[in-house]
Amino acid sequence: MELTLATLPTPALVLDDHKMGANIKRMRSAVRARKASFRPHLKTAKSVPIARRLMDSPRGPATVSTLLEAEQFAAAGVTDIVYAVGITPDKLPRVVALRQRGVDLSILVDSLDAAQAVAAYSRANGNPIPAFIEIDSDGHRAGLSVRELDQVVAVGRALHDGGAVLAGVLTHAGESYFARGQAALQTAADGERDAVVRCATALRAAGLPVPVVSVGATPTALSARDLTGVTEVRAGVFVFFDLVMAGIGVCGIDDIALSVLATVIGTRTDKGWILVDAGWMAMSRDRGTAAQPVDQGYGVVTDLEGRVYPDLIMTTANQEQGILALRPGSSASLPPLKLGDRVRILPNHACATAAQHQHYHVVAGNDGAITEVWDRFSGW
Amino acid sequence: MELTLATLPTPALVLDDHKMGANIKRMRSAVRARKASFRPHLKTAKSVPIARRLMDSPRGPATVSTLLEAEQFAAAGVTDIVYAVGITPDKLPRVVALRQRGVDLSILVDSLDAAQAVAAYSRANGNPIPAFIEIDSDGHRAGLSVRELDQVVAVGRALHDGGAVLAGVLTHAGESYFARGQAALQTAADGERDAVVRCATALRAAGLPVPVVSVGATPTALSARDLTGVTEVRAGVFVFFDLVMAGIGVCGIDDIALSVLATVIGTRTDKGWILVDAGWMAMSRDRGTAAQPVDQGYGVVTDLEGRVYPDLIMTTANQEQGILALRPGSSASLPPLKLGDRVRILPNHACATAAQHQHYHVVAGNDGAITEVWDRFSGW
Repeated sequence: MELTLATLPTPALVLDDHKMGANIKRMRSAVRARKASFRPHLKTAKSVPIARRLMDSPRGPATVSTLLEAEQFAAAGVTDIVYAVGITPDKLPRVVALRQRGVDLSILVDSLDAAQAVAAYSRANGNPIPAFIEIDSDGHRAGLSVRELDQVVAVGRALHDGGAVLAGVLTHAGESYFARGQAALQTAADGERDAVVRCATALRAAGLPVPVVSVGATPTALSARDLTGVTEVRAGVFVFFDLVMAGIGVCGIDDIALSVLATVIGTRTDKGWILVDAGWMAMSRDRGTAAQPVDQGYGVVTDLEGRVYPDLIMTTANQEQGILALRPGSSASLPPLKLGDRVRILPNHACATAAQHQHYHVVAGNDGAITEVWDRFSGW
Repeated sequence: MELTLATLPTPALVLDDHKMGANIKRMRSAVRARKASFRPHLKTAKSVPIARRLMDSPRGPATVSTLLEAEQFAAAGVTDIVYAVGITPDKLPRVVALRQRGVDLSILVDSLDAAQAVAAYSRANGNPIPAFIEIDSDGHRAGLSVRELDQVVAVGRALHDGGAVLAGVLTHAGESYFARGQAALQTAADGERDAVVRCATALRAAGLPVPVVSVGATPTALSARDLTGVTEVRAGVFVFFDLVMAGIGVCGIDDIALSVLATVIGTRTDKGWILVDAGWMAMSRDRGTAAQPVDQGYGVVTDLEGRVYPDLIMTTANQEQGILALRPGSSASLPPLKLGDRVRILPNHACATAAQHQHYHVVAGNDGAITEVWDRFSGW
């Protein structure tokens, strides 16, 4: 039996290949126009076929968020990888094992302790590990800030002089996810660039090499006006986009390539409810739009061809059952969906929703045919 | 190398076998004391070894939330299963396929449409499918209410007279997750019981058989004073417990059997932060305690032996990095954790956190040894 959106067992993760292709093209153009190279983050997709669509070549470059991603993508032929989460010393054997198999894997540190541990392990194994210094450009998470340039230089020296390799500086403007409007996004992008470039300048002034200056977050990557001094851009969630990205204005609802297919279990017109067989297990517990001007609940509901039902969102999610209802204050009517009908639900956060699934069911047009099924992996 | 909490790659899901055993014993005693049979919900664990600890026998009885659970547990020898989420007609072939393999699988309906679809499919396949009528006892999700006894009877008749089997009535007091204190919990349990018993009475008055009267939710199962008229209790999350259950008072923090093992990436004493390699991917995005009097962030932090660090919680979670900090207003001090040290983090919601992982790493005492590794499955 041909698999279609009408026959696929639900809930299921659906990926619109045309939308994904357009999203990738847009990001690649944006980065190229700013004269930087592109190192896509593969943590959103965690899937080899999608990685190959994202990267310059089957060998990379790529960014990952776990060592399992590095190992899985290396097994698929990717040889140029940055593991962009601060390293812990117990993970160094897996790092060196990959490097000894010919993978140019770089890691991340943001403290003298970590830099010294990486240098010591590099010396002990005769394998100089390339490490980036994580720069905190907006207080969002880890990293050294421009107020600590002495520390930045000390970490750089510990790597370079200690037997590791100073790969460069790297930052992630995580706070840009909370920016609103083009001006705020550009300010976030400027801040991200300024922070790493100032740190690179300080390192170079201290006589240290800084081959790569890396920035990255989907909102800033698409909003930056000027990336002078930056050599590389990373981004991940743009591949699918999601309601959080639409809420901050870096994409439209129609650009969202990922959705969860669900079947109607029943309706409670007295309560204004349509019940479906996708709950938080299928959507994830991510409620990223709750902090935005328009709260999209657990997701925006569309028909099988991707047309949004006005004001219909998943307002409540049990483990395996979602409640669709009109947004509070809406003057729209509940669509006449009934037992067995199917809908698609656009997610708040693509990384989180995709992680609840093991396969992407790919559609390439509006005929509902599933053209391919791509595996994704999970774990660490 | 022997696997221990000190050597296990992080993040990793850790299960305290002693605590789980005590939780199971407590629930079984509570149900037995109220003269009901026990049908554990396997959706929390999704793991065969844990299912066998929960059930009366390797054959069941059991409750599941997906057909994949039914299929996986059936493959492991479980033959008495209730699939306790409202059925959609497209799922009936999988239901009958399991039944034809000798699994006594029952399903759930809450509308005349669904009952008629189940009856028609039963007749067409010569396999009378047992179906429960879902009763809404507290407005939390699907189900018919006691204000619609005519509908309840109509659904029962459609099943019984139409060629299916009326298995009984079933409810889930989902709102009990928001109850606070013993009086409120007992009221929730009373309401849950009253609703199904009244529906069972109406069905019997109409000449329909109601062999099973099933209630279930961890808070009500542990709080019910009187289950007269109820034949069966279902519950799931009690097997591990979690911070939400502790917040409503049905367990203590020390009863929580599930935790996520994490390694310290670094500290930012200027910000009051300890960074670890477990973020929302390892904890889930579930923030169930956000609506409780004590918001536990993304989880409560303990040492490797399970002792809580005073007021230390995961306040922020990135995909693969968590930020541990003191609860707002705390007068405690940040513990002197440093790069490479390890902690355990207790989850808001065990069902959601376990679903982010593929294995349970079992500890059976305070020596940190991993005594067993149990698989869990996911998907639909």
